[in-house]
Amino acid sequence: MANPLESCTARAPGSVGNVAVGFDILGHAFDAVADLVTARRSSSAGVRVMCSGPGSSGIPLDAERNTAGKAALAVLQLSHAPWGVDLEIIKGIPVGSGLGGSGASAVAGAVAVNGLLETSLTQTQLLDCALDGEEVATGARVIDNVAASLLGGLVFAVEGKPPLARSVAVPDGLYCALVHPDVVIATEKSRAGLSDHVSRCDAVRQMANLAGVIVGCEQSDFSLLGRFLRDVMIEPQRFGQVRGFHQVQEAAMEAGALGCSLSGSGPSIFAWCQGEALAGRVATIMSQEFSQQGIGSRSWVSKVDSRGAQVTETL
Amino acid sequence: MANPLESCTARAPGSVGNVAVGFDILGHAFDAVADLVTARRSSSAGVRVMCSGPGSSGIPLDAERNTAGKAALAVLQLSHAPWGVDLEIIKGIPVGSGLGGSGASAVAGAVAVNGLLETSLTQTQLLDCALDGEEVATGARVIDNVAASLLGGLVFAVEGKPPLARSVAVPDGLYCALVHPDVVIATEKSRAGLSDHVSRCDAVRQMANLAGVIVGCEQSDFSLLGRFLRDVMIEPQRFGQVRGFHQVQEAAMEAGALGCSLSGSGPSIFAWCQGEALAGRVATIMSQEFSQQGIGSRSWVSKVDSRGAQVTETL
Repeated sequence: MANPLESCTARAPGSVGNVAVGFDILGHAFDAVADLVTARRSSSAGVRVMCSGPGSSGIPLDAERNTAGKAALAVLQLSHAPWGVDLEIIKGIPVGSGLGGSGASAVAGAVAVNGLLETSLTQTQLLDCALDGEEVATGARVIDNVAASLLGGLVFAVEGKPPLARSVAVPDGLYCALVHPDVVIATEKSRAGLSDHVSRCDAVRQMANLAGVIVGCEQSDFSLLGRFLRDVMIEPQRFGQVRGFHQVQEAAMEAGALGCSLSGSGPSIFAWCQGEALAGRVATIMSQEFSQQGIGSRSWVSKVDSRGAQVTETL
Repeated sequence: MANPLESCTARAPGSVGNVAVGFDILGHAFDAVADLVTARRSSSAGVRVMCSGPGSSGIPLDAERNTAGKAALAVLQLSHAPWGVDLEIIKGIPVGSGLGGSGASAVAGAVAVNGLLETSLTQTQLLDCALDGEEVATGARVIDNVAASLLGGLVFAVEGKPPLARSVAVPDGLYCALVHPDVVIATEKSRAGLSDHVSRCDAVRQMANLAGVIVGCEQSDFSLLGRFLRDVMIEPQRFGQVRGFHQVQEAAMEAGALGCSLSGSGPSIFAWCQGEALAGRVATIMSQEFSQQGIGSRSWVSKVDSRGAQVTETL
């Protein structure tokens, strides 16, 4: 048997949850930002957590309450590992941005510890462990961000035992422009504010939008994305939490975006675009629009079909 | 210029509307039953309608109130034809079965008259004209059946100006078993009985089911169809109109169907199956179950990826 690894570092990208049309069931990786987690084998059982990076001071370091820590514990438990780990988290994804940072930390934690195992877990097991981590941050096993961060690209996912995650093809040349304004929203509060009921009319329209986007993606048809990437169900209940949302959305659409909505529960706003150059222009225009509202922001561009979580270093 | 045709006969298959997960937006052709419409060029302007076949006595013969007649009028108007047609409709699709008979007659009427034109209409124009016909039967431009009958196979469709219809790939070997019990339901009444609101929870579950079925179809993954071909939104509001529904559904699922629900608003019940042999067994079992409830029925099997409307004879 080869010498067991002592240390493994995993990188998990940010992600765009919901993707306008797939509340809780669609997400896509956003590779321009990522969290890094290094797991070091320890003779002490359990998990110790360290965390650094912008905005990380508010993140709990108790392993049971930390997304990466909890995911790591779940991997250790599932694999019956007789050892523990020291985890070092480097947050690259802005905290509270709506870019799936908690999910990415959970995924990176699970993948890093998995890298230390003699026998790797399956992807479904890793997803399950990462969901255990996500749950401690948001109070729910919200799968869309977690699955996208783990698998990369666009993912259809449904919670359950076992959870299900399936990659959806996307057109070559599909890029995501994303702007993160200096505004903070708590995911749990945003979720609690949603109405328990929707009109059948809106539900059917949203289902048409969902079907149109999935068919458009699988068939590489940008015209379907341009028509159906619209959220008529959740966005109307949430956009008010992000000042300037409609102006930014309108500016993105006028500049040629296929569709534009909140990333997860916001405050970040994403726009799908045909081609990297257009996505770059749209990102700039969205930031400028926030700036005109007196709101600072950062923006990025990422290919939608980008890589998921990966082991980046082992010792 | 070639001699203009004097007569054209078109065949349009029945269809399964909604397909459990896509209320108003998904339909698939059901080629085991079909309506035939013959259009004969006439020097008299306008459209005269004759109709034969089981159950056809209740069908209005006034062209403005007849689905094929109205669709034919729409084609003549759109093409600025200086002549009229005599239409002969042969109903092969049981009237009031939930097998898209009104839509099929409208499609066959439009396609038959189109066959007489020097310059054919586009498929989108034909769809639009057929929807004019469907509207006089049901009071709404319900597109799922009409688009499936016109295009064949599984179709994603959304009403609008212009209407949109897109073929969705399905796995090879996907068959539909269908049973039509001797029960009559009026589509308009069934639609009016639907609740105006749905719980967000049910809407999100149904959206997961819709996404799962489309991804499963496009990726030829029967396991996704077996998990997600479930209607949690509309079926619970409608199944009570069909006595014995749950027993028939349970029998189909126990026999190995991927999913089973109402065809459109019923009373017909369809079940998707992997393989023609299994579909045959499921069709028999569903009929037997109705029989045990004291209800007569007929059953058929059709490949889901079957042909749409076609011109079958010209003179």
